[in-house]
Amino acid sequence: MVIDIHGHLTPGPEAHVYQARLIMNRGRPAEQARPPTVPDESVASTIAPHLDKLRAVGTDVQLISPRPYAMMHSVKPLKVVRSWTAFVNDLIAQQVRLSAGVFRGVAGLPQYRTEPVGAAVEELERCIRTLGFVGCILNPDPMEGDEGPRPAGLGSEYWYPLYEKLVELDVPALIHSASCVDPRESYTLHFLNEESVAIMNLIESRVFTDFPSLKLVVAHTGGAIPYHIGRFRAWRLRAGGGEAFDDSLHRLYFDTCNYSKDALEHFFKVVPARNVMFGTENPGTGSVRDPASGRQMDDLKPVIDSIESLTNEDREMIYSENAMRVYRLDRGRYAR
Amino acid sequence: MVIDIHGHLTPGPEAHVYQARLIMNRGRPAEQARPPTVPDESVASTIAPHLDKLRAVGTDVQLISPRPYAMMHSVKPLKVVRSWTAFVNDLIAQQVRLSAGVFRGVAGLPQYRTEPVGAAVEELERCIRTLGFVGCILNPDPMEGDEGPRPAGLGSEYWYPLYEKLVELDVPALIHSASCVDPRESYTLHFLNEESVAIMNLIESRVFTDFPSLKLVVAHTGGAIPYHIGRFRAWRLRAGGGEAFDDSLHRLYFDTCNYSKDALEHFFKVVPARNVMFGTENPGTGSVRDPASGRQMDDLKPVIDSIESLTNEDREMIYSENAMRVYRLDRGRYAR
Repeated sequence: MVIDIHGHLTPGPEAHVYQARLIMNRGRPAEQARPPTVPDESVASTIAPHLDKLRAVGTDVQLISPRPYAMMHSVKPLKVVRSWTAFVNDLIAQQVRLSAGVFRGVAGLPQYRTEPVGAAVEELERCIRTLGFVGCILNPDPMEGDEGPRPAGLGSEYWYPLYEKLVELDVPALIHSASCVDPRESYTLHFLNEESVAIMNLIESRVFTDFPSLKLVVAHTGGAIPYHIGRFRAWRLRAGGGEAFDDSLHRLYFDTCNYSKDALEHFFKVVPARNVMFGTENPGTGSVRDPASGRQMDDLKPVIDSIESLTNEDREMIYSENAMRVYRLDRGRYAR
Repeated sequence: MVIDIHGHLTPGPEAHVYQARLIMNRGRPAEQARPPTVPDESVASTIAPHLDKLRAVGTDVQLISPRPYAMMHSVKPLKVVRSWTAFVNDLIAQQVRLSAGVFRGVAGLPQYRTEPVGAAVEELERCIRTLGFVGCILNPDPMEGDEGPRPAGLGSEYWYPLYEKLVELDVPALIHSASCVDPRESYTLHFLNEESVAIMNLIESRVFTDFPSLKLVVAHTGGAIPYHIGRFRAWRLRAGGGEAFDDSLHRLYFDTCNYSKDALEHFFKVVPARNVMFGTENPGTGSVRDPASGRQMDDLKPVIDSIESLTNEDREMIYSENAMRVYRLDRGRYAR
């Protein structure tokens, strides 16, 4: 059983037409009230190549969330973000329903600049309780790299209503930024930088004291932190006391979305298998043939299979057991 | 012979008094005209512990630049930055003179928000031609994480006058950000994120086409890029053509300032020894005893000595040959 916790929705043409209309009309009420109904046949044909790609690499289940660079969190005004997020979550639910058991839903949240997270909490609850989703993605930078005030780091109480709801619903959040409008940074590099910021904000805060059962997953093997672990170990030692930096880091979960075997070997020296879940983004950035191996770069199972430091028990945890536990994929009424 | 290319000045109390006066008085002309003369005896006692630390780990020569978090690039107004930078460079020259051949000078530049780099070019020329320095540090984010417009990325023509002068003087720049006023990011994390941004901006630009002999060194083993090399290899492959991502990356030099042997082992799988120079920041963030090894974390020579993938020829390049060549440390009249 192979569960990929890091997949994203493939939006079809109807979605993009609605997206463009929402932006052009700045989300006026008439547009908000008219999200298109996408026919099942159209959704089925949109997801068919996606399902083929998963079948080709032996992935049994994939958790799909909104395509991050299309989340539009920084597009003004707020109602564009709310309408678009709700539409995308409904489309994910439809894709899950038509995927013959392959997909599970992970919600996007209507995060917007420094707005309080109340609307995000409401949408999370709707997606879990009504649509049967198994978690959400959480964008630590709803400004998407734009100038101007942004919410405080993930260690601040700004985020607490959301953490409370995650704990109450017993679902995890995948920390994953969205687009990036700063011309110095691509969205893909912004992912990594924001993951580093998120990790440091969280583990230097009271969040895991205040929410001991909160489950947060960091995408892409944790930004730069595992590579610079020595720097942060030293920082913590010089601060004198408290728990070891590694113990703090291990309060978080991580996915394996890193397309270098060498890098993954380093990652597994820093993060134990019990904190790691298989994740690939397939289809996404890594969906290209690696001239060295001849395989798609996001075909990570053979890569992880070949990492000698891992035991078979480790691989079981990474491929399925941890995801089953963290995302509670076995809960009956939410099964699909 | 061991040359550490990544050291910073230890400012004494006179420097901090002047720094505070400059800020309080907003750099009014009377203050600018009165930088303190620091007595040689005071400088000698300030640098004695620094020199002891280098002797203890077997470092023969260290290149020292301004302490980055104290550079004040985002402190208003501009004249504070200019006065402080010139004072610090003069203090570095004094420390070099009193170091019995251990130190060589690396200039700080008076970078300020979106001001054109003319003043930085002038100060670079003064430091190289008059003070006998061997290079400079270059801050890709003079805003220090503050809100508001910042210069375009290092790939843009905003920086070209500086690159022209670096080529003309045949000296390298060490890419290293300064402080960080964004409460979400420590300055030490900002270093890493800005290095990632700098690398991507440079290697996706025309800079090395327009300046084929430009020498740029990225601090701290290159931010997050070597760890996420698979992601950027895929990105380049999907863009279809151009040179391989690794070849682009190898247009840059790097230092070894990363306090984890595991991470350095990964680094050397991605960056060949001919592009790497020994750098430790000693004394700095890594100046703390590692409970695992019993050594100071910034005592990196034994760590690099123990990395089995490196040959003795590689180590010669890393410890001294590359620095001699890139920083032209043998040039007669600039020797000290």
